[in-house]
Amino acid sequence: VKELALISRLLPLLPTNDYVVVGAGDDCAVLDLGDPESHALFKTDAVVEGIHFTPEIAPERIGHKAIGRCLSDVAAMGGLPIAAVVTLGLPREYDPAKVLGIYRGLGQLAARYQVAVVGGETTTNPGGVILSVALLGHVARDRALLRSGASAGDAIFVTGDLGGSIDGKHLDFEPRLAEGVWLAENFRPHAMIDVSDGLAADLGQILVASGDLGAELLQSALPISRAARVRTRSTPRGKPPHLAALTDGEDFELLFTVPSRVAVQLQDAFRAHFPAVKLSCVGKVVSQPGIRLRSPTGWVTIPATGYQHFA
Amino acid sequence: VKELALISRLLPLLPTNDYVVVGAGDDCAVLDLGDPESHALFKTDAVVEGIHFTPEIAPERIGHKAIGRCLSDVAAMGGLPIAAVVTLGLPREYDPAKVLGIYRGLGQLAARYQVAVVGGETTTNPGGVILSVALLGHVARDRALLRSGASAGDAIFVTGDLGGSIDGKHLDFEPRLAEGVWLAENFRPHAMIDVSDGLAADLGQILVASGDLGAELLQSALPISRAARVRTRSTPRGKPPHLAALTDGEDFELLFTVPSRVAVQLQDAFRAHFPAVKLSCVGKVVSQPGIRLRSPTGWVTIPATGYQHFA
Repeated sequence: VKELALISRLLPLLPTNDYVVVGAGDDCAVLDLGDPESHALFKTDAVVEGIHFTPEIAPERIGHKAIGRCLSDVAAMGGLPIAAVVTLGLPREYDPAKVLGIYRGLGQLAARYQVAVVGGETTTNPGGVILSVALLGHVARDRALLRSGASAGDAIFVTGDLGGSIDGKHLDFEPRLAEGVWLAENFRPHAMIDVSDGLAADLGQILVASGDLGAELLQSALPISRAARVRTRSTPRGKPPHLAALTDGEDFELLFTVPSRVAVQLQDAFRAHFPAVKLSCVGKVVSQPGIRLRSPTGWVTIPATGYQHFA
Repeated sequence: VKELALISRLLPLLPTNDYVVVGAGDDCAVLDLGDPESHALFKTDAVVEGIHFTPEIAPERIGHKAIGRCLSDVAAMGGLPIAAVVTLGLPREYDPAKVLGIYRGLGQLAARYQVAVVGGETTTNPGGVILSVALLGHVARDRALLRSGASAGDAIFVTGDLGGSIDGKHLDFEPRLAEGVWLAENFRPHAMIDVSDGLAADLGQILVASGDLGAELLQSALPISRAARVRTRSTPRGKPPHLAALTDGEDFELLFTVPSRVAVQLQDAFRAHFPAVKLSCVGKVVSQPGIRLRSPTGWVTIPATGYQHFA
């Protein structure tokens, strides 16, 4: 499925109404449900056996990943989660103990963030396990952080380390909810997204949504994960680590832009508040479209063809 | 999957919080999101190729059915829908025109009831098409109609005709949203549910939720669909029509109980307001558990083993 091309044809088919503040296309939709203090956030996402996890994976980790992805999307809006509903599709003859394991993993992560799980449908899905989660959250009224607010000159930040999530982090990541709310309240980023398709692809989403801007990234500033470095050592013909950090995806870190004048202050305050979480300034937003990477050997243009995985 | 047995083991794994008014187990969850006038309704449901529709079905009807099921659940709470998010799982190499068709059918039904579709995820699902919809709705505060409020002596009503939905209605049904809201506002049923698993099974849900009550049904009062009668004629060894009406499922009609003293008044007012929609009083709630059917040859006990399909 050529997702972007398809989505552009799908969007006109999706009705809207007066409740909608922000419709499909951001990390979450934003709705005005009548609460004078807050807007609602609404999101769905799914994980599928053979695509997002392999059959031998412990069921608890499947549940964790499925709701974690939605929680990460709420974090990327600067919001907090409220309640989730779950659809679980199972092959015939699936072990009930595994179903309980999936719900245990999902329920444990939900409980950690005070999310109520208020509905669970089970259906047969002949081809394998699929777990779809819909999440409702909230954010202070008119305070949702969108992808579309970046400006030329903004500094680009990302939390945590990037690359190599396939070695485990894609199943065990912790959604950056505390960090997202703190950023929204204290530094009001111009634009924010979670890194699900890789730094380059998700930064591309911000740049396109913000009016076809561009970015200059510094290779030496990329927060490359240990997993990405280890993978490169064990597979010498694989991606170099910096390319893994740019393109691997499923890191579920927060990527955001702020005015460059607050960059130093943000770094200091973040370090004081989240001493265990890395925060890296990886570059800046520029008016010229496209993403360019300053490597040790000079500038490299990162192909921006639809901002799909390109490596 | 032995759904009921599993659910009883799952429920303790599902965290709750102060937003929850009614958690998992009714047609929708009920949440207090801070609007002084209303409560939110939250529901998810899925349709799967080979289970809920066959591969040759027009994609528009798949989309219609998927959101229609959730709309029917909102109707059964006496509420109205607000917004939906969609997860679509597709086999590899699925025709993009079919994807557009699915969304067209879903979007048309959504638009008819002023529902915004605010998110759509597409993923690969190797085994076939799966379409999961999550729906957010609202209902006047403390006015959600639950399954649990029936009393001995209540009259039992059902809208429309029952049985034989496999011949087409299961794909093309119209959710009873107008009827549900009208009933909630004018007659405040003690208990309401939509008929998805068959009259007997769904009535069983009301009776168990209301404190292990029972029901006496009148076979001659069952609103048997033309489709059910035609099926019996063409397959003489199949279910008799009244059994089809009791057990076929996927009728998506409203089943509810009201105090018997308002039954006649309700019939008259409903007929005046919805002249095109049948409303049938099919029996009464009794204190003795179990469902008994008064047939032309005498009383028949309908096995209530878990209220699964039994025919």
